[in-house]
Amino acid sequence: MKPMGPIPSWFDAEDDMLLIGDCGAESLVDEAGDTPLFVYDMAIVEAQVRHFRDAMPDTLHLHYAIKANPFAPLLARMAHLVDGFDIASGGEMDMALEAEMAPDRISFAGPGKRNDELSAAIFAGVTINLESEGEARRALAVADAIGKTPRLAVRVNPDFDLKGSGMRMGGGAKPFGVDADRAAALARMVIDAGAAWQGWHIFAGSQNLDPLAIIETQAATIALAARLSDDVGASPALVNLGGGFGIPYFPGDQRLDIRPIGTALDTALEQRADILRGSGFAIELGRWLVGEAGVYLTRVVDVKISQGETFVVVDGGLHHQLAASGNFGTVVRRNYPIAVANRFGVAPAAEPVTVVGCLCTPIDRLGDKVALPPVEEGDLIAIFLAGAYGASASPAAFLGHPSPRELLLG
Amino acid sequence: MKPMGPIPSWFDAEDDMLLIGDCGAESLVDEAGDTPLFVYDMAIVEAQVRHFRDAMPDTLHLHYAIKANPFAPLLARMAHLVDGFDIASGGEMDMALEAEMAPDRISFAGPGKRNDELSAAIFAGVTINLESEGEARRALAVADAIGKTPRLAVRVNPDFDLKGSGMRMGGGAKPFGVDADRAAALARMVIDAGAAWQGWHIFAGSQNLDPLAIIETQAATIALAARLSDDVGASPALVNLGGGFGIPYFPGDQRLDIRPIGTALDTALEQRADILRGSGFAIELGRWLVGEAGVYLTRVVDVKISQGETFVVVDGGLHHQLAASGNFGTVVRRNYPIAVANRFGVAPAAEPVTVVGCLCTPIDRLGDKVALPPVEEGDLIAIFLAGAYGASASPAAFLGHPSPRELLLG
Repeated sequence: MKPMGPIPSWFDAEDDMLLIGDCGAESLVDEAGDTPLFVYDMAIVEAQVRHFRDAMPDTLHLHYAIKANPFAPLLARMAHLVDGFDIASGGEMDMALEAEMAPDRISFAGPGKRNDELSAAIFAGVTINLESEGEARRALAVADAIGKTPRLAVRVNPDFDLKGSGMRMGGGAKPFGVDADRAAALARMVIDAGAAWQGWHIFAGSQNLDPLAIIETQAATIALAARLSDDVGASPALVNLGGGFGIPYFPGDQRLDIRPIGTALDTALEQRADILRGSGFAIELGRWLVGEAGVYLTRVVDVKISQGETFVVVDGGLHHQLAASGNFGTVVRRNYPIAVANRFGVAPAAEPVTVVGCLCTPIDRLGDKVALPPVEEGDLIAIFLAGAYGASASPAAFLGHPSPRELLLG
Repeated sequence: MKPMGPIPSWFDAEDDMLLIGDCGAESLVDEAGDTPLFVYDMAIVEAQVRHFRDAMPDTLHLHYAIKANPFAPLLARMAHLVDGFDIASGGEMDMALEAEMAPDRISFAGPGKRNDELSAAIFAGVTINLESEGEARRALAVADAIGKTPRLAVRVNPDFDLKGSGMRMGGGAKPFGVDADRAAALARMVIDAGAAWQGWHIFAGSQNLDPLAIIETQAATIALAARLSDDVGASPALVNLGGGFGIPYFPGDQRLDIRPIGTALDTALEQRADILRGSGFAIELGRWLVGEAGVYLTRVVDVKISQGETFVVVDGGLHHQLAASGNFGTVVRRNYPIAVANRFGVAPAAEPVTVVGCLCTPIDRLGDKVALPPVEEGDLIAIFLAGAYGASASPAAFLGHPSPRELLLG
C-alpha cells in the first residue's frame, strides 16, 4: 500500500455518498449529464476568501491568478470576490474582461508576450508586468503606435527564493522578470518615456506550506521594493508581493496556517519604509483560492486483476488530471487524495488497488496502490484538490476522448 | 552546455534557412499565417512506409496507431498508405472513419472502453481488442442488445517485456490486456458466445532503439500466439505483434536499423507453428511512422539575460510540446534536437542559451543550455521530432494561448 494525500476535512457523506456542497456526488453527475466531471464548490472558495480577509491586513489587495482555473462561471463569481485578476496571455485577458473585471484591476505577467498581446493589453488599459528591457522597448513602441499611455509595472527576479516551494520563481538565473540589480533602471526608463508606472511585481515561488518561509520572503520582498523604489526615486502605486500559499496535496502535508503570515505582514507593512507609505500591496493567489474547492468525479469502467494486482479502470485520466497522474513538474509520483464517492467512509479493503485512467499508456495512473473500499464497475471515484490546474492544464485532446464536464455549485 | 538529440540527417538549408519539404521554414510560417506551427512532411512519412515495406516480410500488415498524430489531413493520407488503423477511443474511431479507413481494418484497444464506445464500435464493424473478461462480458451484452455479431480480438498482457523500451507494456502486473495465462480461456469464451474472433493483440513495449530486443520480443510474441491458439484450438485471423520501433530523440540515440528485424521476422514467420499458418500478422506503429516528419516552428519573442545566463523566450511552449519540455513520462529532462531555423548550419555562439516557452511557469523549458547560433528577437526556432505526440498530446488550453497551427506538406 502507498499513502495518499489528506482528504479535506470538511467532506462528509450521506448514506455513504460523498456530499459536495450538500449534494450527493451521483446526483451531481446526473445534473451534469455524464462523467468525467469537475465539480467546483463556490462556498469553499468564498470561505477561503473570507479566511484571507480575516487573517490579512485590511488594506491588502487580493488578486486571483486565473491560470489556476479559468472556468467562465467561476471567473464571473471571482470578479466580485477579489480585487484584481492576474493574467498570463491575451486569451486570459479576454476571459478576464468577459468576466467583467475592470481593466485597471487586471495585470498581465508572462515571459513571452507577443506584440499583438501587448497591443491588446495597452489598448484595453490593462497593466503589463514587464519581464525584460526588450519587452519594455516593445511595449513603449506599441503604445506609441496606438497613441495610448501604457500602464507598466516592472516584474523583478528577486535575489532570494521562497524556500521549500513547489515551484521556485526567484533566487537564480530565471526567465521571469528582470534581475533585481537592473529593475530600478528599467522603472526609471519607462517613467522617463512617459508611461504610467504601476509599481513592482515580485514573485518568489508558489505552492509553499511553511508559514515562516512565506513570512521571511514577504519581509524580504517589501525591503526589496523599498530599496528599488528609493533607487528610482518614486513611490510605486502597487507592490505585488506574489503568492506562494500552498495546499496539502500529498501524504504528510499539513494545511498552511495563514494567520501568523497575516500578523507578520501587518507588522511589516506598519514598519515599511517611507517611500512605500502611500503604496498599495497585493497578494496574488490561484491554487490556494480554488484548488480545494474542486472534486473530479470519474466512473469505474472495469475492475481487473493482473498478476495478483487489482486495477480499477476509470473513464477519466491524465487527459483531465495531468498533475494528479504525476506528469506535470513532479519528479516522484505521489498519490493525490482519492476516494470511492459512493462508498465514502466505508472501511478500506484488505488489499490496495491501483486506479488507472482510460488512456492506453502506462503513465495514466491516478492512484497507485491506494487503500479503498471494495470497488465495483459503475462506482464513482473522487479525486480531491481538483479545483486548480486540472481541466485547463491537461492534454484534453490526447487520444480523442471527450472534454470533461464542469459544474459550479453555490 | 548540455547536449541535444541528433537533428535528422536529411534536413538542409538554403541561404541558412531550414528547408522542410523543399520549402523555407519562414515561407511555411507565411503560408500558415503565424507561429507556433507544426509542419508535417508527408514525403518523410511515405519514405518510412516504403522503408518498412522493403525491410519487412511481404505479407506483414502495417497498422498506424493514430494516437501518435490524428491531424485530419494526415489521417486521410495515411488511410491509403497503411493496412489498418489502431484507435484508442470512440473519438479516434470517428476520426478513422472520417479518413475513410474501412471499419474492418480498424481495431480498438484501450483499458477503459465505455459501453457507449463499445456499442459504437460494434455497430460500425470495428474490431475490439478486449482488455479484460469484464470488457468481454460488456461487449457481448452490447452486441446482443443491438443485434450485431461483434468482431473481437483478445489483447494479451505478455509474460515478457520489450527490454529497453521507453514505455513498458508487458512483463508484470499491467492494466492492459488479460494475463497470458487467462487469454486462451477468454478467446474460447467469446468464440463460444458466437462472436467473430479476430485473434490476438500482444503489445510488449514502445519507443525501442535496440533491434535485437525487438527481434527477441517478436519471436516470443509469435511463440506466445501459437501456444495460446493451440490452447484455444482455433487459428487466429490476425496476430498483432505490437509496435516498439523507436526514433532517436536524445543525445547518444542511434536510428533503429529495421533491416535485421525484417530478416529475423521473415525467418520466424516461415518457421511458425502450424496453427498460425493461415493467420495474418501486423505491426502497429505510430511514432516511428510520423515522429521524424514533424518540425515545430516557434518565434523568438525575447532574448534576455538573467544572472549571466541567456534566455531565449519563444511564442510556443509546453502547451504544444509537453514531451519536449520533459514533462510527459520522463524522469530526467533531456534536450530534443533544436535549431535556429533561419540560421540553420551557422556555427554556434560561444555561450549556450536556454530556450523557454511563453508560459509563466518554470517547467516550460524547450532547450536547456543548448549550443545555438547567436539568436535575436524575431528568429524562428525549430524543434525536430515533432510529428508524434505533439499538438494532440499537450495541454493546449493551459494559460489561454491560441492552439498551434498545423500544416501538411507533400
